[in-house]
Amino acid sequence: MHTTSERPVQRYTRGVITHVTDTVAEEVPVALVYQGVPHVVMLASPADLEDFAVGFTVSEGLVANASEVLEVRVEPGEHAVDVHLRIAPARFSALLQQRRNLTGRTGCGLCGAETLEQALRPVAAVQAGAPIDVEELHAALRELSSRQPLNAQTGSVHAAGWVSAGVGLICVREDVGRHNALDKTLGALLRAGADLNSGYMLITSRASFEMVQKSATAGVSLLAAVSAPTGLAISVAEKTGMGLIGFARAGQHVVYAHPERLKER
Amino acid sequence: MHTTSERPVQRYTRGVITHVTDTVAEEVPVALVYQGVPHVVMLASPADLEDFAVGFTVSEGLVANASEVLEVRVEPGEHAVDVHLRIAPARFSALLQQRRNLTGRTGCGLCGAETLEQALRPVAAVQAGAPIDVEELHAALRELSSRQPLNAQTGSVHAAGWVSAGVGLICVREDVGRHNALDKTLGALLRAGADLNSGYMLITSRASFEMVQKSATAGVSLLAAVSAPTGLAISVAEKTGMGLIGFARAGQHVVYAHPERLKER
Repeated sequence: MHTTSERPVQRYTRGVITHVTDTVAEEVPVALVYQGVPHVVMLASPADLEDFAVGFTVSEGLVANASEVLEVRVEPGEHAVDVHLRIAPARFSALLQQRRNLTGRTGCGLCGAETLEQALRPVAAVQAGAPIDVEELHAALRELSSRQPLNAQTGSVHAAGWVSAGVGLICVREDVGRHNALDKTLGALLRAGADLNSGYMLITSRASFEMVQKSATAGVSLLAAVSAPTGLAISVAEKTGMGLIGFARAGQHVVYAHPERLKER
Repeated sequence: MHTTSERPVQRYTRGVITHVTDTVAEEVPVALVYQGVPHVVMLASPADLEDFAVGFTVSEGLVANASEVLEVRVEPGEHAVDVHLRIAPARFSALLQQRRNLTGRTGCGLCGAETLEQALRPVAAVQAGAPIDVEELHAALRELSSRQPLNAQTGSVHAAGWVSAGVGLICVREDVGRHNALDKTLGALLRAGADLNSGYMLITSRASFEMVQKSATAGVSLLAAVSAPTGLAISVAEKTGMGLIGFARAGQHVVYAHPERLKER
């Protein structure tokens, strides 16, 4: 399954029409299936789906940590992908119980939330983590744009990158969805056994509530977004102890929560 | 409930730190409740929520048309908003039936989809609509950016605008979420009794699968996005007869599906 495809298009530029071929990002339905029970379908770029599945499972709080994801198996179909996961039996029981409580209801938007309590599930405080070096942050932001091959081809996908403090940008994942890019990078790190307290996450998108909620649930202690945060995202970051940076571009940024997380120079 | 709030921030610009106040977009959980039964919670900008609720209900295919939405009542709470809707009894029965079939399951991402069949629900062909005048499209694109007051304040929200052919940009709605902005504009039009075959939709975001699916379900015959479409979005647009334009900026655009929908000059 390819992450891009070539499409014949009609390009209009100041009154002139040309017929050319354009490279676009593919987007496929990905079903996450736990112990044989379908849980959710997401649209995603069909790459790094093991990372995606592990990251989603942790960031949505379906397991307490990555060691409770016992098995991940990607099964590509013709137009869609099934990802079969096996999680710790106690977590699967809890998932079934949660689903039983929702009998006769469906949900959406916030990954299955149909009530306000579910949508705003409480997130535990994150550990403070290592202080962030501003120079290193800006160097990583400059590097990030050169490490988005899918976006370079298509101009339409998001990325999430992990900076290991004192080391630099060590992992970047891309996806048509910003939540998916975050989950893929989280999953890649967790599968590699990385310590999420020794670094921080860069995202090429805005920092909405869900981006902060997912990051905090996975234990990320600082999130830097290229675009703006929302008010709710700031409130949740303040409450959980997560550093939150917006408008992070080479040479500038704005700190919206926990500025003490940045190293004074 | 306010759409923005003021936040104290620490701004870093080339080594200089200043302490200023930033205006950020608020994002609140909005629960859609049909005939007293909670269906879904979305995070949205707390404005135009009647429009949002009607647009969502139609674009998700929960009703066949806006006349089947019998009542909409917004009830703001302290930290969240309930929107109570009453839909045609037969549609509510179908919704309950659909939910009963999902017994013991929850869903997400694609508005409740937990199987691939649900995610890729078939969309009926759209009517061809009036041919699009390229000059008018570009004039509307230029105007759109001046009609996004929330984005002007916060730099972080999406917009969807409706162009009535021969008239121009007649309706713009904003939201932190691109799907919500689309639903709000659709809802505003449908509540006003507008004919969706006499115009087309502009969106400030990418054209992903769901944006095309929602638009086609509501009967929109052409969608023009400021950013790129995905491959799946193009495929669905081709199949349903919807014109799809990407990278729509003043003076240029790319037609990805049904170029015959544009008027030759």
